[in-house]
Amino acid sequence: MERVEVRQNVLKENDRIAAELRKDFERRGVLCLNIIASPGAGKTSLLEHTLQAFAGSRHKVAVLTGDIQTDRDAERLARFGFPARQITTGGTCHLDAAMVRRALADVSLDGADLLFIENVGNLVCPAAYDLGEAAKIVMLSVAEGDDKPLKYPSIFGRARLMLLHKVDLLPYTRFDLAAAKADARRVNPGIEIIETSCVGAPGLQAWLDWLERATGLKTGEWPPV
Amino acid sequence: MERVEVRQNVLKENDRIAAELRKDFERRGVLCLNIIASPGAGKTSLLEHTLQAFAGSRHKVAVLTGDIQTDRDAERLARFGFPARQITTGGTCHLDAAMVRRALADVSLDGADLLFIENVGNLVCPAAYDLGEAAKIVMLSVAEGDDKPLKYPSIFGRARLMLLHKVDLLPYTRFDLAAAKADARRVNPGIEIIETSCVGAPGLQAWLDWLERATGLKTGEWPPV
Repeated sequence: MERVEVRQNVLKENDRIAAELRKDFERRGVLCLNIIASPGAGKTSLLEHTLQAFAGSRHKVAVLTGDIQTDRDAERLARFGFPARQITTGGTCHLDAAMVRRALADVSLDGADLLFIENVGNLVCPAAYDLGEAAKIVMLSVAEGDDKPLKYPSIFGRARLMLLHKVDLLPYTRFDLAAAKADARRVNPGIEIIETSCVGAPGLQAWLDWLERATGLKTGEWPPV
Repeated sequence: MERVEVRQNVLKENDRIAAELRKDFERRGVLCLNIIASPGAGKTSLLEHTLQAFAGSRHKVAVLTGDIQTDRDAERLARFGFPARQITTGGTCHLDAAMVRRALADVSLDGADLLFIENVGNLVCPAAYDLGEAAKIVMLSVAEGDDKPLKYPSIFGRARLMLLHKVDLLPYTRFDLAAAKADARRVNPGIEIIETSCVGAPGLQAWLDWLERATGLKTGEWPPV
């Protein structure tokens, strides 16, 4: 009982901070996207390619990337000239709004158009924590199996977009694209779905097109020439 | 502060129940293995093949399988004639010892030699909850990337065995086997490591051999003739 109350208070306090962050992002004209997936679904690689695409544009993008330990992902993401900061949670299995607020004290959003938050690799708890984002994006690698939307309805139910990722591996897996899409729509009739890969076709064009529609921001040429 | 105290009390109560379970498993001569991995690493498929291998033996195996939602995994596992029960956590991102105790009220361990517990797909929180197991086994699909042992040191540090799984996908990924093994040994010098796949070579023979060494139990012919 006590445990449930503490959790409710934690979530209430989180929502209060997230609402402040959301107001601040809107005031600055920064679109914030919260990317949630299993460990190893391909979040960091997707963001590497996305930052590379924006490096050839006139837009400024910032990234916060969450992990239990290590700042490897921020290192990978800092190579493209945009602000990138690691949030090391030290054991906590999700990001919360207070962590994002603390991290933003060190990251300049001046002139930024887009803020990506790469959540901790976990399909469960990150779904419950509002980070002030404009939208949650859930990413499912086809190597993980097509049963995930029904197994993790909380995150698939709250995401605006599902990326079916690593579709280059489809020939080597038993992943049923149609079943995964139908199940995602069963828990979330309005969810948008695109197929992506960082290796070969269809690549990230559908994702960059989605970003352009969602944000009005145009990346540079992709793949970079 | 209050939050930390509540979590400590929760873990203390969990450890108490886990110690009772452990004593009960030892008294019955049941070896309990707690399998932990990301969503979609291949836990259920590994157990399907393992139960199939034991179906041709004189041993009795039981399975508890945890998920946030759905009882699909228990359905998949019940086909081999052994007791299999789903634990649906309803939002909780890990199994705890009390859930295992409740589930065991419905599962007969009479005559059982081996109890597999398939944890919720999550590399973070399951590491902290003792379920009374003799050993934790961590499974890492090569589709997830080789950086996971350092990113999730808690579970790789506590596991007796790491299964590098889906090695049939190695030719299509940039997974560095040597790096993953070295990093796992860096966080856990004593960890045992084997390579496995449910598709093609090297298959599950190394895993079945490990089980035989760890338990003294011999499966039937594998692959089944």
